[in-house]
Amino acid sequence: MPRYALLVEYHGAPFAGWQRQKDQPSVQGAIETALAKLEPREHTIAAAGRTDAGVHATGQVAHCDLQKDWDPFRLSEALNYHLKPHPVAILKAAFVDEDWHARFSAVERQYLFKLISRRAPLTSEAGQMWRVNHPLDLAAMQAGADYLLGEHDFTTFRSTICQAKSPVKTLDELRIASKPRPHGVEFHFHVRARSFLHNQVRSFVGTLERVGAGAWAPEDVKTALEARDRSACGPVSPPQGLYLANVRYPDDPFS
Amino acid sequence: MPRYALLVEYHGAPFAGWQRQKDQPSVQGAIETALAKLEPREHTIAAAGRTDAGVHATGQVAHCDLQKDWDPFRLSEALNYHLKPHPVAILKAAFVDEDWHARFSAVERQYLFKLISRRAPLTSEAGQMWRVNHPLDLAAMQAGADYLLGEHDFTTFRSTICQAKSPVKTLDELRIASKPRPHGVEFHFHVRARSFLHNQVRSFVGTLERVGAGAWAPEDVKTALEARDRSACGPVSPPQGLYLANVRYPDDPFS
Repeated sequence: MPRYALLVEYHGAPFAGWQRQKDQPSVQGAIETALAKLEPREHTIAAAGRTDAGVHATGQVAHCDLQKDWDPFRLSEALNYHLKPHPVAILKAAFVDEDWHARFSAVERQYLFKLISRRAPLTSEAGQMWRVNHPLDLAAMQAGADYLLGEHDFTTFRSTICQAKSPVKTLDELRIASKPRPHGVEFHFHVRARSFLHNQVRSFVGTLERVGAGAWAPEDVKTALEARDRSACGPVSPPQGLYLANVRYPDDPFS
Repeated sequence: MPRYALLVEYHGAPFAGWQRQKDQPSVQGAIETALAKLEPREHTIAAAGRTDAGVHATGQVAHCDLQKDWDPFRLSEALNYHLKPHPVAILKAAFVDEDWHARFSAVERQYLFKLISRRAPLTSEAGQMWRVNHPLDLAAMQAGADYLLGEHDFTTFRSTICQAKSPVKTLDELRIASKPRPHGVEFHFHVRARSFLHNQVRSFVGTLERVGAGAWAPEDVKTALEARDRSACGPVSPPQGLYLANVRYPDDPFS
């Protein structure tokens, strides 16, 4: 059976997360249902990152096996047709080898977290970023973030239900950029690693927001990291600011 | 009674437009209801631009008269509290003279229209821009747009229900910028004039989209303009790409 890689964008709000669940809407379920419209049978697809409820993606990657030889462009168009009205879009489809795996072949994940400091509630952008009322100190947040770079035991920044075998991961990038807006300041957290623990990015952002607000000193992030204790973590940020932005493979299947 | 100018942002989708209507949700109605929570009586507010159903604003300006002397910051905070859960936000409030009028004191309106050319449906950004499937030629659209600059009889680009006394307006800017995206190209139409006719911006964009698609030549815009005939207009664009972005006054009340 030919295998296809799918580059997937979605708005996370209406879903209980990526992963298929009984009686709950999921992104995986929406795509599998669309696949069943093309080839009527049960489909099971795998993804590079199993995003949580409310988390978005602009560059999730999944793969599926089909019986028919599909032209990749026609496959993406047909899936988009059947995905309506779900806020899920196949940006690209590509033929890949039978042993290629969206999750296990991936060598890097990139997340983007959008945080905005502004007094007024969001309107058109509601549900697309995390809003806080107070000003945030970019330099302090970046100083705190820098303690997290490299290989560490990230037990502090890992959900208690995380199923990863080891809490040791290597964080390759945690860069925070700010963008002044007419009424507020937007902060983009660019986070990059081979792989992540459950809730790791949201634990980082929630903790660094405390640093930006002045409630924590940047060095407190180092102390929290070294504690290797989940209770040393700051609050976990809400999901609506988080985007799975990119997944990297030794050979880009979509190039 | 002290008069206050309000800088207003909203997402147009849930509303039948700015203007209060019987039995239909409107932005004006939402703000007037919030004002009645502060000072219980009937309120009537005026706005710089009466946007249509589905049209958004990032810089609408309105004014209201209140009995109490409100600290402008507290007024905006109180209104935002009472506006929940509507996607309407008061970005700023300011004390103005009693003869200052959001509509009649305005000397310029700026609109932004967001158009995206991409194959895949939108997900997080659905309802925030107009999506077309096909490529668009920026230079051709700009060449067509240039014919519209200056003072003209804009009967062609005016809705048949437009109530303006004269179809003659002066268009000061119609600049189109493109922004490449990983999967598609986004086009921003920056449109600026002292005042506009009903549906004028959407009539411009719908017509110029036809030029960008190659269905019209840029010169056809000139022919359509000179026809002074509504039936010579291209299709009117859908509302979800349009934002009332800024209103200018001789003295900026919010500075």
